[in-house]
Amino acid sequence: MTEHISINYKRLCLNLKKLALFGDCLDDGINRSFGSEADLQAREWLHDLWKNEMGLTLRVDPAANIWAKLPGAEKLPAIAIGSHHDTVKNGGAYDGSVGVLLATEVVYRLIEEKIKTRHPITLVSFTGEEPNSFGFSTLGSKIASGKLSKEKIENAVSSETGEPIKNAFAAAGGSLEQICDAKIEKSQIAAFLECHIEQGRVLDDKGFSLGVVKRITGIYREKIHILGDANHSGTTLLPDRHDALLAASELMLDIERAIRDFNRNDLVGTVGHIEVKPNSTNIIPGDVELIMEIRTPDSELLQNVKDRIETGMKQIIENRGVDIVRRVLLNQPYVEMDSQIISAIKTGAEKISEPCPELTSMAGHDAAHIAKVTRSGMLFMRTPGGHSHCPRERINHEDLKKAGAVLLNAVLSLDKELD
Amino acid sequence: MTEHISINYKRLCLNLKKLALFGDCLDDGINRSFGSEADLQAREWLHDLWKNEMGLTLRVDPAANIWAKLPGAEKLPAIAIGSHHDTVKNGGAYDGSVGVLLATEVVYRLIEEKIKTRHPITLVSFTGEEPNSFGFSTLGSKIASGKLSKEKIENAVSSETGEPIKNAFAAAGGSLEQICDAKIEKSQIAAFLECHIEQGRVLDDKGFSLGVVKRITGIYREKIHILGDANHSGTTLLPDRHDALLAASELMLDIERAIRDFNRNDLVGTVGHIEVKPNSTNIIPGDVELIMEIRTPDSELLQNVKDRIETGMKQIIENRGVDIVRRVLLNQPYVEMDSQIISAIKTGAEKISEPCPELTSMAGHDAAHIAKVTRSGMLFMRTPGGHSHCPRERINHEDLKKAGAVLLNAVLSLDKELD
Repeated sequence: MTEHISINYKRLCLNLKKLALFGDCLDDGINRSFGSEADLQAREWLHDLWKNEMGLTLRVDPAANIWAKLPGAEKLPAIAIGSHHDTVKNGGAYDGSVGVLLATEVVYRLIEEKIKTRHPITLVSFTGEEPNSFGFSTLGSKIASGKLSKEKIENAVSSETGEPIKNAFAAAGGSLEQICDAKIEKSQIAAFLECHIEQGRVLDDKGFSLGVVKRITGIYREKIHILGDANHSGTTLLPDRHDALLAASELMLDIERAIRDFNRNDLVGTVGHIEVKPNSTNIIPGDVELIMEIRTPDSELLQNVKDRIETGMKQIIENRGVDIVRRVLLNQPYVEMDSQIISAIKTGAEKISEPCPELTSMAGHDAAHIAKVTRSGMLFMRTPGGHSHCPRERINHEDLKKAGAVLLNAVLSLDKELD
Repeated sequence: MTEHISINYKRLCLNLKKLALFGDCLDDGINRSFGSEADLQAREWLHDLWKNEMGLTLRVDPAANIWAKLPGAEKLPAIAIGSHHDTVKNGGAYDGSVGVLLATEVVYRLIEEKIKTRHPITLVSFTGEEPNSFGFSTLGSKIASGKLSKEKIENAVSSETGEPIKNAFAAAGGSLEQICDAKIEKSQIAAFLECHIEQGRVLDDKGFSLGVVKRITGIYREKIHILGDANHSGTTLLPDRHDALLAASELMLDIERAIRDFNRNDLVGTVGHIEVKPNSTNIIPGDVELIMEIRTPDSELLQNVKDRIETGMKQIIENRGVDIVRRVLLNQPYVEMDSQIISAIKTGAEKISEPCPELTSMAGHDAAHIAKVTRSGMLFMRTPGGHSHCPRERINHEDLKKAGAVLLNAVLSLDKELD
């Protein structure tokens, strides 16, 4: 009669509020990035909750990912559920936290209802999912999936404090020296389910509370260096200029036009970062570097967009007499979520008669990396107005109740199906 | 027979080379901004040249402007000639230096030829003409013309070294405490003549060696703050975005279009400085500040350009759902050069049968400020290709000989005319 179990909504809300206190900056949202004091405080609180309050077996792996196990009846790999407890700068209270605490609530209810699963059920909160001052994002899940070796991270230092990453791991209970031991195997983890806020407006615009992630977008990033001619802003007439910032302006608008023209729901493009030299009021900009990001799960579409943008660039080079040098920074392909988990989530939603459409995640997630080593899947919750990574981030609390029931049902149905 | 005196071209070139050594960064040009070690070294060298080598009476005023006087036969105010010895970052060897050393050569020749002028002839090198780390430009001439009081500068600190401006004045032989005593009066200085490279391409394009400045452009600067919406670069679809950097791109291209459409030789507009927040690869820019500069000697034209740009801004605000907040930083009107000095320069050029067309200076100069207190005028020298404020800055050495003769002739004719 598991479909009648509902989560303890009040306890979940209270836990969300407690976790949100770590790094609280009032109107400026929450700062709880990997290595911060708030991160350490949140970890201590999670340890206490999972170990002392719930009686789970706690393990902090060398990447400082936190795992807490509820034993299963059979000798089987675990079903892991969770997300991450860190935040972006001036972030919200739900990105990551909902996934960790909803999973916590699911396990809490299994304990309270004395439901014995076949598989161990393991809670997880991954280290540093958000971009942090050491220059990494999805840090813990990349290490856990074997995508990031000790060599690639050992020399990283915080751009804010100058502290080496080694110290940050140690403070959080990990160990840079043993980092390769954080790699997980399918023989240990049969499946990973992550509940997360959508962060976009797809569900909100269509009036859905929940969605199941079909795939996680590919992310392509390119550094584009525009070389013009720095010169005196007074004495250089317009026909004699090679203004790198005006060339960059044309390029940025052209990228936007290309994305708009393809008019797809699974395609976005952004220039979020730009550096201008010499960046002086009275000197024509001679040198601009910008980072172009294109996200889509459709690699053919990505190529078409890139071709279109390249055509525009050639025109700009010719018209403005500038040079453009390009360098690919990231070309991360899309990741399919596991079909068995997608089915389990859909079945879980059907049990409470809740629609749960498939959608593409346009954000990267820990689940995308864990998919490399085991079954991985995601349940999305509506994000009102699509506001995320900012203090305005909100959830509808009715959606939270529904997500709790779906996650619980999905875990139980996977527990029956998987070996 | 003064028209037969020619300058000692070899000595002048050697002095230009010597001065260029202070702050020499090889291929990266010259760094000799106010307060730097190179500035102090250049000052010491000038002191030695003017005082010990040429036997002039040296005075460093409280603004650290350097003055060196050749006595006149009558009790009359001085005729001052000179420019500035500092450079922009990665600047060239001629901007400012030509004016100081050509004037030096003129006085050298007066001494050698034992020509006794009625007026004292005073060499001057102004402090910090170029923008410097204390946040000022034309610093010495602004103080000398009474435009900059002690209160306005006393709290300035170097953005590079953190050193207070007081120390920089003291190290250069000035005194912040006595700064108001640096103000000059028409009763002391009857006229100021500055020879300077044009820095633009007007003379070069038309094939002239020299020109006489009719007026110095007005400079208008405005800080434009564009407020959009920072949001997730993956999950926010294009129709839901309010990208402040794309709004800024449209605005910058619109400013360029406006300037182009008016199609005037005495109008330029530039966005040289831009700040983007949060400037992160995966966040849509929510906040952009840029500085728009418009230069023209025509105040009606300036208003027309501003009106046109304002119309464009309204469109951008409407189309992109952003806010724009504007603040005027500078509205410096154009300055007419003194007609008597213009005539003297033209007469000087006629004596060597050299054409010397009138033109507008699109760069600001010390002469613009000195015009507030006494007769002020400028002789421009061709700048090949218009390259200035960069290591590529060059001069034609034949032009230098011509400029020397014209400056000498102009000084002697003013000496005859003025009281």
